[in-house]
Amino acid sequence: MMHNYKRVLMGPGPSDVDARVLAALARPTIGHLDPFFMDILNEIRSLLQFTFQTKNEITLAMSGTGSAGMETCVVNLLEPGDSILVCVNGVFGKRMADVASRCGAEVTALEIEWGKVFDPQQIEQALAQKKYKVVGLVHAETSTGACQPVEEISHIVHRHGALLLVDAVTSLGGMNVDVDGWQIDACYSGTQKCLSCPPGLSPVTFSADAVKALENRKTKVQSWYLDLSMIRQYWGTDRLYHHTAPINMAYALLEALTMVKEEGLEKRWQRHLQNHTILKAGLEAIGISYVAQKGHELPMLNAVAVPQGVDDAVVRKQLLTDYGIEIGGGLGTYKGKVWRIGLMGSASTRSNVMLFLAALENCLIQQKYQFNHGASIAAAIKASCR
Amino acid sequence: MMHNYKRVLMGPGPSDVDARVLAALARPTIGHLDPFFMDILNEIRSLLQFTFQTKNEITLAMSGTGSAGMETCVVNLLEPGDSILVCVNGVFGKRMADVASRCGAEVTALEIEWGKVFDPQQIEQALAQKKYKVVGLVHAETSTGACQPVEEISHIVHRHGALLLVDAVTSLGGMNVDVDGWQIDACYSGTQKCLSCPPGLSPVTFSADAVKALENRKTKVQSWYLDLSMIRQYWGTDRLYHHTAPINMAYALLEALTMVKEEGLEKRWQRHLQNHTILKAGLEAIGISYVAQKGHELPMLNAVAVPQGVDDAVVRKQLLTDYGIEIGGGLGTYKGKVWRIGLMGSASTRSNVMLFLAALENCLIQQKYQFNHGASIAAAIKASCR
Repeated sequence: MMHNYKRVLMGPGPSDVDARVLAALARPTIGHLDPFFMDILNEIRSLLQFTFQTKNEITLAMSGTGSAGMETCVVNLLEPGDSILVCVNGVFGKRMADVASRCGAEVTALEIEWGKVFDPQQIEQALAQKKYKVVGLVHAETSTGACQPVEEISHIVHRHGALLLVDAVTSLGGMNVDVDGWQIDACYSGTQKCLSCPPGLSPVTFSADAVKALENRKTKVQSWYLDLSMIRQYWGTDRLYHHTAPINMAYALLEALTMVKEEGLEKRWQRHLQNHTILKAGLEAIGISYVAQKGHELPMLNAVAVPQGVDDAVVRKQLLTDYGIEIGGGLGTYKGKVWRIGLMGSASTRSNVMLFLAALENCLIQQKYQFNHGASIAAAIKASCR
Repeated sequence: MMHNYKRVLMGPGPSDVDARVLAALARPTIGHLDPFFMDILNEIRSLLQFTFQTKNEITLAMSGTGSAGMETCVVNLLEPGDSILVCVNGVFGKRMADVASRCGAEVTALEIEWGKVFDPQQIEQALAQKKYKVVGLVHAETSTGACQPVEEISHIVHRHGALLLVDAVTSLGGMNVDVDGWQIDACYSGTQKCLSCPPGLSPVTFSADAVKALENRKTKVQSWYLDLSMIRQYWGTDRLYHHTAPINMAYALLEALTMVKEEGLEKRWQRHLQNHTILKAGLEAIGISYVAQKGHELPMLNAVAVPQGVDDAVVRKQLLTDYGIEIGGGLGTYKGKVWRIGLMGSASTRSNVMLFLAALENCLIQQKYQFNHGASIAAAIKASCR
């Protein structure tokens, strides 16, 4: 039976999808070699270049979700025996190390406490000890809500002759991701976060140095499906058939990216930041604190500690059932202890923040939660709104 | 710029997508752990079991197109050093051998002329010479339009203690694919052929023996994204997060499969066969012949020789431009020499056959093609219609 439910998607993704994007999704399917579809691919590339802030020729959407984008970068850059340093401060860094180990790479995981971000000095030390082909870094760690500064680390990585691979699944379209400016060599994202398109595609971009690494491989890329040396010939002028592209998902991505361009990158980042600021003020007035290192909280993914004595699952279920609001639970060591509140793309609105805070307050009253004496959520929100 | 073109999709896929399926695609996105979405996954599994004619518990839709389904089966069944016999009689058998070689398997390609199908004796001989873990076979070879009988070969494969892997990308939903009856161990398909859903997902099913092979692996599956040992825990009762499922594509697949069930498997196969018979009669009256071995022509994919003196590209372009009809060109050695005319899923209608034959006749007149003296297309069609 087909559902007809409308949710307010304030979890770690998917985020709310605009009616324009849903309408695009439902346009008649055409062929993957149709001249009109070739135009669509070109427009997607151009808008992805805009969004990633890059001139990279290999800038395209892989036919899988964000994790397929991660695997694409890893398997195309690494051959058996190659070494990668993966910076792990949450689930997605851990996943990158796992993916890399499966392609026969020598993986060194540099692990720090969840929620923390890496100090450039830590990376410098690790690179001084050993030569790596690739350094992998998660920009926006969706499991902890921590934002990893990239630019300074990029300089260090390049000074040591390595390639920089960055996970921008959650950050792209919601905050600055400056691929060319920060000299990122390989970057991947997902469609269902701050681009507010349904899940199913993964934007990927490769710098000239990353392309060189791809072209200088001695072995075939271990995944046929994710092999950029072939896929680039379909997205390029040759239009060589590789696999049948997900046509309707491409329509949706084109529309979602068009909306990003219409809004403008900086305005969009600003919107994400403003709504985050209001949410944060409201949560702090309730007495709820963030788990990410202070000063490094992501604007689009607010990971907060479930207050003591409050039942994680009951509250999330009540939010979903009574208000149609989806938020995320904690992953891994954060299971049962953390809520992940997304304000991504079309879902990042002041109304959603207000609705969520009011609904949460209600749920907490039922949990007999002791609110901060004298604190006023409304006053906190008011002070943070400008 | 978003297109608004409606094509008649008579190529090798995607096929025409029904308005019901497009409407389902555009329903509001919900979360990948939403209880309603869990219901949708269960319904998809149950309808895939119906369509594959199997009770296999691991029956699910992978988050990629048909080639991702191929890679899923190969990388989950094979570990480095394992041996596979791949039966190659076209592009997709060749692709399977390529995919298998990339995961460190010992690949033996048993090659025969394109368009031909394998005699069970050929397989028997190959299996008598060497022990294989897996035998890979393409049921409906989309590059040649040849239908490979599976059942007898399955008995031989199992007698030799191997697992049978079958590519049913083009056949599923358009002709009999009897996974349990034929004892297929691993089978994959695509959504954009006879299921008439947009491309983007790949139905896959694993028998108990295939699951055993998966569970007895000594090494991790080389692809994290396609690792069934984890993905089964999301589709199963644990609902463990692996990656964000392509929500809206799942809506579309559910609707497309519902339409398969409403029509009924046998009626659907019959429809595909009838329309193929009419098309074949019409083409033969024109003097156009099939490239697949006689008696083994696929009902949903009609691969025919481009008549001598006729320009392949000009005719295909004219069909697309003047009539909105897409047919496919030849792949590999068939490039420029073969047309692939699809009659798949919603596109397999008598009207499409009539329109196509009339349009083709017109194009051929402009190519100064010498029609068979005295042959009447209309009479041939009439004789084949019942």
